[in-house]
Amino acid sequence: MARPATWGKFIVVDGGDGTGKTSVIDFLKEELKGGDILFTREPGGTGSPLAEEIRGVVLRKRDERVFAETELMLFSAARLQHVGNFVLPALRRGNHVISDRFSSSTIAYQLYGNGRLDLQKFFDNLDRVATSGCVPDLYILLDVDSEEAMRRRHSAGATSRFDERELAFHKAVRAGFLETANRFPRSVIVDAGKSDADVKQNVLDEILKFLN
Amino acid sequence: MARPATWGKFIVVDGGDGTGKTSVIDFLKEELKGGDILFTREPGGTGSPLAEEIRGVVLRKRDERVFAETELMLFSAARLQHVGNFVLPALRRGNHVISDRFSSSTIAYQLYGNGRLDLQKFFDNLDRVATSGCVPDLYILLDVDSEEAMRRRHSAGATSRFDERELAFHKAVRAGFLETANRFPRSVIVDAGKSDADVKQNVLDEILKFLN
Repeated sequence: MARPATWGKFIVVDGGDGTGKTSVIDFLKEELKGGDILFTREPGGTGSPLAEEIRGVVLRKRDERVFAETELMLFSAARLQHVGNFVLPALRRGNHVISDRFSSSTIAYQLYGNGRLDLQKFFDNLDRVATSGCVPDLYILLDVDSEEAMRRRHSAGATSRFDERELAFHKAVRAGFLETANRFPRSVIVDAGKSDADVKQNVLDEILKFLN
Repeated sequence: MARPATWGKFIVVDGGDGTGKTSVIDFLKEELKGGDILFTREPGGTGSPLAEEIRGVVLRKRDERVFAETELMLFSAARLQHVGNFVLPALRRGNHVISDRFSSSTIAYQLYGNGRLDLQKFFDNLDRVATSGCVPDLYILLDVDSEEAMRRRHSAGATSRFDERELAFHKAVRAGFLETANRFPRSVIVDAGKSDADVKQNVLDEILKFLN
């Protein structure tokens, strides 16, 4: 599993909706620009038009029933192209790659969130092929209490109006992220309940500490 | 595996390029119209816009490298939607379904034709999920000598100009079809080297014999 020492490092920043992940990624892009760090995101991702097309196909709302297994196959197909045509070649050239989301998001949303843990083994088999052993060297999870995450998403304090089903979904997704973080050789769980500035700085510090 | 007796039958007509499959299917549609038989085809297929979209994505020529595993995931995702949203509901209602190609074509082209038999087990695992056990009740394979198939495709007797690599590919595909036909409980191999009229009549007879 270990890649040669000359290769760049693969870093994944992940987390549910309402954890501030997008603004953290924007901050990292600004702070780390000009270096040998490349940014990408999933599903889809830099460097594979096919993966981007599949992203479009899988995210489009449709009238027909879309089976959970279909989604897992499509996410995995996109990931395979992304890893094979962008992530691995970049690492091999010595670039570090920071990916906004990765397999862990599929596990958190499609398996835990949608209550389909019965598909975990099926997905693991797909994922092994899709990622070609491209396990994150550093996995950073932005974690926040589910009520707080929903409060942020719905903005201005509509706490009492939470849909119980939506909350249950977010709690399941969060549990999935936390569980999955355990799988990686090096995971950092960042408390995303802190101030925006603190969270950003924490993530940047973790990355710089890891790379230096 | 056996479906209830009230269900319709699932019939697959398959075969390589140059076996005359398309004109056989057109003939069947004409001869069997007005009955309770529905026609569909793969990849893509009637009754699933998503499967059709995936067909478009997978068949499009592109500049980036497309991994064999990606193709297998995409074909399987399309098949899952096709089977789940069209084939199985139709069979359940008592309609018979005739499909132009099925998993067997993926095996013949993507595994045998492209020399990727190392992916057979990976594909079998995908296919089990994609077809939800929807094994053809009757499998009809149009089989013709590879040189003859190529002669037909290139039309007017350019036999001496055959590309050896192309011929090797067709031979491998043919071997894949023949091998795969053995997997099904009821397979009929039709000699597609005979006259067009004979082939069509043979296939029609086999279907009528099976359904009556």
